[in-house]
Amino acid sequence: MSLSKNQFKLITSLKQKKYRLKHHLFIAEGTKVVDEFLHSNFELDQLFCVDSSPYSNIENCYLVSDAILKKISTLKTPNNVVAIFKIPKVQKLKNDGLILVLDGVNDPGNLGTIIRLCDWFGVDQLICSENTVDCYNTKVVQATMGSLTRVSIVYTAIENYLKNTQLPIFATLMGSENVYKSNLPKSGVLVMGNEANGISEQILNLTNNAISIPRFGNLQQTESLNVATATAILLSEFKRLT
Amino acid sequence: MSLSKNQFKLITSLKQKKYRLKHHLFIAEGTKVVDEFLHSNFELDQLFCVDSSPYSNIENCYLVSDAILKKISTLKTPNNVVAIFKIPKVQKLKNDGLILVLDGVNDPGNLGTIIRLCDWFGVDQLICSENTVDCYNTKVVQATMGSLTRVSIVYTAIENYLKNTQLPIFATLMGSENVYKSNLPKSGVLVMGNEANGISEQILNLTNNAISIPRFGNLQQTESLNVATATAILLSEFKRLT
Repeated sequence: MSLSKNQFKLITSLKQKKYRLKHHLFIAEGTKVVDEFLHSNFELDQLFCVDSSPYSNIENCYLVSDAILKKISTLKTPNNVVAIFKIPKVQKLKNDGLILVLDGVNDPGNLGTIIRLCDWFGVDQLICSENTVDCYNTKVVQATMGSLTRVSIVYTAIENYLKNTQLPIFATLMGSENVYKSNLPKSGVLVMGNEANGISEQILNLTNNAISIPRFGNLQQTESLNVATATAILLSEFKRLT
Repeated sequence: MSLSKNQFKLITSLKQKKYRLKHHLFIAEGTKVVDEFLHSNFELDQLFCVDSSPYSNIENCYLVSDAILKKISTLKTPNNVVAIFKIPKVQKLKNDGLILVLDGVNDPGNLGTIIRLCDWFGVDQLICSENTVDCYNTKVVQATMGSLTRVSIVYTAIENYLKNTQLPIFATLMGSENVYKSNLPKSGVLVMGNEANGISEQILNLTNNAISIPRFGNLQQTESLNVATATAILLSEFKRLT
């Protein structure tokens, strides 16, 4: 069967953040990623596939041709299925355990990597500033490989959260305490900043613990670590002996 | 002035690996990246810029129009300068210190991140299997942000290297010794594998130390860490207390 005009219009619109926010819907693609969402708490809106046999139990499943799948897909090589899921309602923010706050992370690939790291290291809550790239951006959804179904993510005014938390707040700052020699707590907030500009000044003023990853090679260079690799090293340090 | 046909043909050809290998040349772009190469041991072949004032000391500098720069650039937003540098001659392989071996890393972004990590952590030698993506690929050159000038990289038959080294060889293997509890040596070889298939079997047979990064969240999931983030965590572990 073929798609209705409205279905086609809806899918196309969901490639833009404002329509994702308006409809509370997002796109997931490919057998593996879609399966992870189907087997999670996420609620399916509708699903389009070139072979319906794996989805025979699903009510809102539409069989489409390869040509149509290609038309609605955001991937270079579309993979069998494009599904629309509902964006979950915002949960109450957690205030213990290890919490990661992102201040303006821009790149979908970096956010996808960071969400996978949160999944791996069992980060209890990921809190994103409102100018952080949308985690329901199609590139992020595909890059997270299903981790999005297992990590609790909230977009909010991080300044308010940081002002109100009782937890110690950590930020990386060049030349501050060597993270390898720090005593890191089990519960705490780690703040990571924008790719080009780092953490914004008003957020940095709210942090009370500065840590740094020491550089071992070529000490005269100013090049920094990418935000996703720095996050990997810091989450590893928080968790390694717990 | 405008480019000769031969110059245009050469630049275009260097976007492909076989011509980079044939001519022993590669492309670097943008003020920042080109400056890093100019201030390194790399030898310039020729340089094309829309404003020659920063390059007034350089012999093979050609002033070109914005339109021509755009035509020869590999970037969406060309940035002032496109330069061709010589690929350095292969150095003798180091056999002490911390050595990283890549077995078939495919993605230019991952290789770029790994080269930046080698720079940060002062890895003494990066050795790539011949099927690892070319480090002079334009995407890798741009992603390394100049780290390529400071890391010694060799492409070779890694099997031969591993057979002949006296250093302990480490590989990550699910369920093996927790890296956080391992006593890691100052000198050793760490092998990282392909994004989809990991380390190939004949290489794995040559390793004598298996380590693993434990998973803290959602233990039933099989999703693994991305090769670049896993490398970040492991290099950090090798270096943290040195």
